[in-house]
Amino acid sequence: MIEIDPSAAPHLEDFTPGQRFMSSERYRLDPARTKAFAAEYDPQPFHLDEHAAAASMFRGLAASGWLTAAVTMRLLVRSELRPAGGILGAGIDELRWLRPVRLDDELRIESEVVEVGAPHPGRQLGVLRVRVVTFNQNDEPVMSSIASLRVPTRDPVVATDASAHGVRAIEPSNRD
Amino acid sequence: MIEIDPSAAPHLEDFTPGQRFMSSERYRLDPARTKAFAAEYDPQPFHLDEHAAAASMFRGLAASGWLTAAVTMRLLVRSELRPAGGILGAGIDELRWLRPVRLDDELRIESEVVEVGAPHPGRQLGVLRVRVVTFNQNDEPVMSSIASLRVPTRDPVVATDASAHGVRAIEPSNRD
Repeated sequence: MIEIDPSAAPHLEDFTPGQRFMSSERYRLDPARTKAFAAEYDPQPFHLDEHAAAASMFRGLAASGWLTAAVTMRLLVRSELRPAGGILGAGIDELRWLRPVRLDDELRIESEVVEVGAPHPGRQLGVLRVRVVTFNQNDEPVMSSIASLRVPTRDPVVATDASAHGVRAIEPSNRD
Repeated sequence: MIEIDPSAAPHLEDFTPGQRFMSSERYRLDPARTKAFAAEYDPQPFHLDEHAAAASMFRGLAASGWLTAAVTMRLLVRSELRPAGGILGAGIDELRWLRPVRLDDELRIESEVVEVGAPHPGRQLGVLRVRVVTFNQNDEPVMSSIASLRVPTRDPVVATDASAHGVRAIEPSNRD
């Protein structure tokens, strides 16, 4: 759990590798909505047709992996990880779909800071890398990924060789 | 364009790095559906509220990056790239959101084979890595990623040192 004043949203300097965050909620898939998502965005037989799904490597109807990813985002937005400025994704690495997600599964996430990037000089933000693992109701991991989030720094002036902990070699200006 | 008989879906052995595929369609976002997607899966002010969005780094309402990813999947499923067995994603690497996608943008994709993995011995499939770039109606790239797809091999028995072209060091058994 992050050890800062919960009334102040954390900035880049407040994060360190190893900090862990949990879902504050779970998300129960709805079979009809799950099929509708696949029909629109991932129209393939193993997501839509029971018989085709039974014969596929999924051995039964499975949610689109992109629905799992979208639900993971919802759970991340509502989790204990609440950087200043919101959850602003720059990119995703190492996304893996680990198990089929069934049409009425209940999902939750756990996340962990894996890297606090150096602030971008002059831009007042840096990239926080967070491993996010999505679990089903049996605590089996169904998806894993590393999200790169843009997180604001507290202070506008930072050294270009700032460490991962946001050490400043130059004193911040006296703007608030 | 892939140079095989279009009546036979291509297997792993039919792919080589450098092959390129285009969208066979474009996808025009619908502003109401785009907001509804964000409300459900990415409920943050810059996707939902005009004023908050104008003040954000997006400088106006932007679609959730996960909607862009989902639409990219739809365009991939319906593109010229049609491996035997469908578009079965094992994972995604190097996903980058490059530009805001606006609520009525029209998206298309281009894809290119970047790697043909060695078949998994005994499993009759291997991983095809495809770079997928999503463009808006101004031909500006909005998202880029590398998809790892599970693609069946034509023959069940393959050498463990099979080349990227699927050369067999062991003759296939007479299982069909």
